[in-house]
Amino acid sequence: MIRPHAIPAGALPLASVHIPGRIRFSDCDPAGIAFFGAWFTLANAAIEDFFEFTLQVDFHDLHGARRTGTGFVHAEADWFAPGHMGDRILFTPMITRIGVASYATTLHAHRGEAELVRFRFVNATTDLDTARARTIPDDLRAALARYASTCESLES
Amino acid sequence: MIRPHAIPAGALPLASVHIPGRIRFSDCDPAGIAFFGAWFTLANAAIEDFFEFTLQVDFHDLHGARRTGTGFVHAEADWFAPGHMGDRILFTPMITRIGVASYATTLHAHRGEAELVRFRFVNATTDLDTARARTIPDDLRAALARYASTCESLES
Amino acid sequence: MIRPHAIPAGALPLASVHIPGRIRFSDCDPAGIAFFGAWFTLANAAIEDFFEFTLQVDFHDLHGARRTGTGFVHAEADWFAPGHMGDRILFTPMITRIGVASYATTLHAHRGEAELVRFRFVNATTDLDTARARTIPDDLRAALARYASTCESLES
Amino acid sequence: MIRPHAIPAGALPLASVHIPGRIRFSDCDPAGIAFFGAWFTLANAAIEDFFEFTLQVDFHDLHGARRTGTGFVHAEADWFAPGHMGDRILFTPMITRIGVASYATTLHAHRGEAELVRFRFVNATTDLDTARARTIPDDLRAALARYASTCESLES
Repeated sequence: MIRPHAIPAGALPLASVHIPGRIRFSDCDPAGIAFFGAWFTLANAAIEDFFEFTLQVDFHDLHGARRTGTGFVHAEADWFAPGHMGDRILFTPMITRIGVASYATTLHAHRGEAELVRFRFVNATTDLDTARARTIPDDLRAALARYASTCESLES
Repeated sequence: MIRPHAIPAGALPLASVHIPGRIRFSDCDPAGIAFFGAWFTLANAAIEDFFEFTLQVDFHDLHGARRTGTGFVHAEADWFAPGHMGDRILFTPMITRIGVASYATTLHAHRGEAELVRFRFVNATTDLDTARARTIPDDLRAALARYASTCESLES
Repeated sequence: MIRPHAIPAGALPLASVHIPGRIRFSDCDPAGIAFFGAWFTLANAAIEDFFEFTLQVDFHDLHGARRTGTGFVHAEADWFAPGHMGDRILFTPMITRIGVASYATTLHAHRGEAELVRFRFVNATTDLDTARARTIPDDLRAALARYASTCESLES
Repeated sequence: MIRPHAIPAGALPLASVHIPGRIRFSDCDPAGIAFFGAWFTLANAAIEDFFEFTLQVDFHDLHGARRTGTGFVHAEADWFAPGHMGDRILFTPMITRIGVASYATTLHAHRGEAELVRFRFVNATTDLDTARARTIPDDLRAALARYASTCESLES
């Protein structure tokens, strides 16, 4: 396992989006820093906003009315520095793979210029009524591809 | 990234310990399954019990009076099958590396014979007052080594 | 509002049941004590076990296959003393009212003889498919009444 | 126990502040609605923002550098309607009592005009190093009083 290195916020692709989040009192543990499990929940909130504002696919509608899950088959995180109560975080998602029924995301979490955490996620699309895999819905696939391509084309 | 394969509970080392946990209503999401973030919190509770009952190093005393953190520098999980409300889980920790100021753990989560999730964690020991790295305390190091060696010696 | 007084564990009704729980690292906040919100989640886990072991009505089956919710319409807690990492808690439920489509519970949380928290809950039974109120299912009503009556008959 | 009635957002005092929050996927349970415990955590995040933006007392600094806790001695909630994934909530705090070492808050949670939840909290100020009660810090007391008085003076 090769440990990744933190990158400054300035090195992120120019066209990438930055989703605000905040470390709350309740996210922190007796060591005074954000609990590792809370970081995953914060990351998921950022992904919800990324769906809504950037991909323009409503995360709640997708899981609700459209009965399509985007369950995690893999999730990982590398911590470079601890998060503290009240820290304002910017989450930057990068789409790294779009498959038939799954997609991979790298999510950077920065406080100012410093990257605190790097996540890598693989999500698989499922039919929530049958609990079986289903292909990525067309609108989600198109939106993921568009965002991925925008980031690359503007990468310095 | 190579995706691991689930192993049946029967294939775990004979001397490994199995720590009970349970998926609660509050751990589950609108898709009706355990939320991925909740799995990390369940895993941490199992690690606390592993410290207390197997390693006989009190997790709460370590972080409290002894002011020694065991913060996560890496955490990852692969999901093989979803967990449901009320599921009884057995968590099986395996120590895979003991360094100077960090150690690595693989944690299997089984429901009956089926492995639902496999975690891999790297934890670094820190002085909670200075937030700096410190060597693994002697009692914790000895206990981790003893457990790792017991598992290996009895491995089928 | 009259603030209740803590009662020692020894003053609980003889026939009341005591459900074990434990305060985890992840339940605690930077003040080093169990976060108030985490207490409600711990209480809910105790209620799940009370349903299963005492009432013998499966909480997960009730909310799953039977599509019957027991949503909170009121929840309150009074704290008498803080909970700490690793504390072993005994939760003691008392049924204080059984209505047509709702029931009220007082839940005591003791660490040893000391009551740390007293909860009062009102839960309403609903049809999860229509989100409308429904009468308390017969088996649940009978079990709640039986437990309430047992506690009273043995009260010192 | 008298159950309160929901009031429309338009009936809140004109000078009261409204703090945005959002119900996340991870806040929701298998019944598809916001878990009651998650509501308390959402409420606490709103209180943090109320401290920062309205009271201008930094919640994180207060609990961190200033070592002053604002622990809950009482918390209660009445639910009028369920919250759903993605709901945008406005939290409106009202200071109802300022004592020597504690203060009481009513917190309304509205979605549009509909009040979904009403909270009542009593918080006691403590010295986090000694775990003993301490008088409300002067700046916090003045800010609470100012906000309470502003709300009253503009009440229709």
